[in-house]
Amino acid sequence: MLAKIREKSERIIIGINSGTSADGIDTAIVRIKNSGLETEIEVIGYETYPYSPTLSQRLNKDMGQNAAGAAELCLISSYLGELFAYSAKSIAKKFSVPFEDVDAIGMHGQTIYHHPEPVAFPGYKISATMQIGNPAVVAERTGKIVVSDFRSRDMAAGGQGAPLVAYLDFVLFSHRARGRVLLNIGGVANVTGIPASAPIESIIAFDTGPGNALIDAAVFHFSEGKKSFDENGVIAKQGVVIKELLEKLLSHPYFKKEPPKSLDKETFGRLFFQKLLKENPTLPPANTIATLTDFTIKTITLGIKEHIIQKDQSYEEIIVSGGGAENKTILEGLRRNFPNLVVNTISDYPILGKSKEAVLYAFLANETLMNKKGNVPSATGAKKPVILGSVTPGEEGL
Amino acid sequence: MLAKIREKSERIIIGINSGTSADGIDTAIVRIKNSGLETEIEVIGYETYPYSPTLSQRLNKDMGQNAAGAAELCLISSYLGELFAYSAKSIAKKFSVPFEDVDAIGMHGQTIYHHPEPVAFPGYKISATMQIGNPAVVAERTGKIVVSDFRSRDMAAGGQGAPLVAYLDFVLFSHRARGRVLLNIGGVANVTGIPASAPIESIIAFDTGPGNALIDAAVFHFSEGKKSFDENGVIAKQGVVIKELLEKLLSHPYFKKEPPKSLDKETFGRLFFQKLLKENPTLPPANTIATLTDFTIKTITLGIKEHIIQKDQSYEEIIVSGGGAENKTILEGLRRNFPNLVVNTISDYPILGKSKEAVLYAFLANETLMNKKGNVPSATGAKKPVILGSVTPGEEGL
Repeated sequence: MLAKIREKSERIIIGINSGTSADGIDTAIVRIKNSGLETEIEVIGYETYPYSPTLSQRLNKDMGQNAAGAAELCLISSYLGELFAYSAKSIAKKFSVPFEDVDAIGMHGQTIYHHPEPVAFPGYKISATMQIGNPAVVAERTGKIVVSDFRSRDMAAGGQGAPLVAYLDFVLFSHRARGRVLLNIGGVANVTGIPASAPIESIIAFDTGPGNALIDAAVFHFSEGKKSFDENGVIAKQGVVIKELLEKLLSHPYFKKEPPKSLDKETFGRLFFQKLLKENPTLPPANTIATLTDFTIKTITLGIKEHIIQKDQSYEEIIVSGGGAENKTILEGLRRNFPNLVVNTISDYPILGKSKEAVLYAFLANETLMNKKGNVPSATGAKKPVILGSVTPGEEGL
Repeated sequence: MLAKIREKSERIIIGINSGTSADGIDTAIVRIKNSGLETEIEVIGYETYPYSPTLSQRLNKDMGQNAAGAAELCLISSYLGELFAYSAKSIAKKFSVPFEDVDAIGMHGQTIYHHPEPVAFPGYKISATMQIGNPAVVAERTGKIVVSDFRSRDMAAGGQGAPLVAYLDFVLFSHRARGRVLLNIGGVANVTGIPASAPIESIIAFDTGPGNALIDAAVFHFSEGKKSFDENGVIAKQGVVIKELLEKLLSHPYFKKEPPKSLDKETFGRLFFQKLLKENPTLPPANTIATLTDFTIKTITLGIKEHIIQKDQSYEEIIVSGGGAENKTILEGLRRNFPNLVVNTISDYPILGKSKEAVLYAFLANETLMNKKGNVPSATGAKKPVILGSVTPGEEGL
């Protein structure tokens, strides 16, 4: 099977991701030619299959170091496997691709815990990550080869297991004359800096700090569950930044660390906001949301200025993706802070749009199946490039 | 790489298992020719690399549905990956096999939780299992292809994910004229019935009930941690069976279930013993150990008589393996209960000896790499044979 797949001039691969907010399954079906730096990607279709509110709440509750035990983790992992398999079949049908034409599935799964900082064990320093979504269930239901668990191998090679998007960003956005910053504002915000006409080793990528997770938590709290995010950034625009609070937030030690560095969703997520509320029980809604939004803008700005733009003069453009690309207050803030750069959103690049994360895992699956190394050591901190993931045989094996 | 490995006339594969008692890493290095029913296995060497008492205690504490959270589970999984990699390198060295001659590693890992009974989720019935020992770490440290997570695919196909030993038992022990019962007494006890000259579909295999785990827990308790098992069954021999207690134990609903059926280590393990102690705080040491030993003998006898021997007249031999094969009281009990059968121990079959479980995972890895289906549906209850495991690429890929 693998030999047959490798011989094909183009492969059809389905990419599956369940984001840090655990609200649904992002699924992309793509046509891929070649591999490595010669990769050509055509997105055939993209769809989000939302979770029920009950499941979304359950997954959010399961996240973190001690929230769920082995029983919950392995049962819900197999349950997600069923839903991922269903989403793979659904997207092929929706975009009229006969399912027998699908060559493989690349599945990131749902992150439950991510601990890139090494912990001391007798004789070893250990870092680890946990993504759930059982690949055996997906392979059994679909009959397809499934590539999964992309982060572990990079971490075994000394990396942070993130950001994995750096390679795809390089393949899609490296430019002879223009240095570009790819900024993804999801639950956390991460950037990839690609200098003009530079080799892949010169990529810089890291998490800058909070993305939408803190803002979302505040909106959810103050609206008593009626709203889950600040649509278009309207609430933030009505508020005034609370300077003392902002300064306190900016004093977090993460912002003084050198890249490569990456964040657990928890660091600037729901629990962080709840702690903030406990310490400041009388926070006014709009001003708080304005402050958290400015916290996101300022830490992104700081990250890009200190670690990317200062180091290379070729940067001309910032391309924003993720939910945060639809928050006008964030975009305005970034445009104000980077007067010499063009700030575009990913929707100006219709090839990917919202599908980027799901496309990433199809792309990385293709790399693994083609025996190519899929991590970028300068982005993750790994000691060397490695082949990512584990491969679960389809109906006909490998 | 896979293509090269498949073309070889013989492969060298290392099998790794960490048993339910979590006291060390059972490692076998084997030479395998062919695959499926034509498989020929030569055990080059076998070794147990013991865990430190601290690690063994920690792993035992981590077992069960809610004992450990995501952080502990994924960190210790990567730590075990380091130790498994070390054991693989060590066994090759010990038996003078150049490490570059090793083709792959088959790794069962450490079972933390096993839930074969389906649990209702919206729209699906879910069963699941969790084995730890991160294959990406093993592959990165050794550079070898690693096949792992053997149980999940069988469970995805409707099986109990156990016993997986049935196929190996069939390959090694099926006989033209003699029906044979393979009995493994580990933490739990499992049997495989192979009628004379029968096709593989006629195998019966299931967990009969307790093995050594309950006896071990009692010995550990009464000796205040000085002993961890009843050496040669000497303590049991000194005691007298407490009939009421035995009858109460035998009334457990598991023994009325029809096979295929399998047990979590917890069902008749340490926690079960602790509950027993709470209900009967004045249990006398030797008599209790005698009773628990008889409980193991009686449930094994019941399982073999009701579900194996009654259904076929060709059975002539019982072959006992696992730690229980060294408990003379258990062996004597079985010989008394089966006067018409020969009760041998695996040491009468020097090809395997104690290495059987570790050899099993090398055998199953070979099956997966050769695109062969490794489960036996009549043993696990799966709807069909499936290719087991996930394959993590070595240094040079797949």
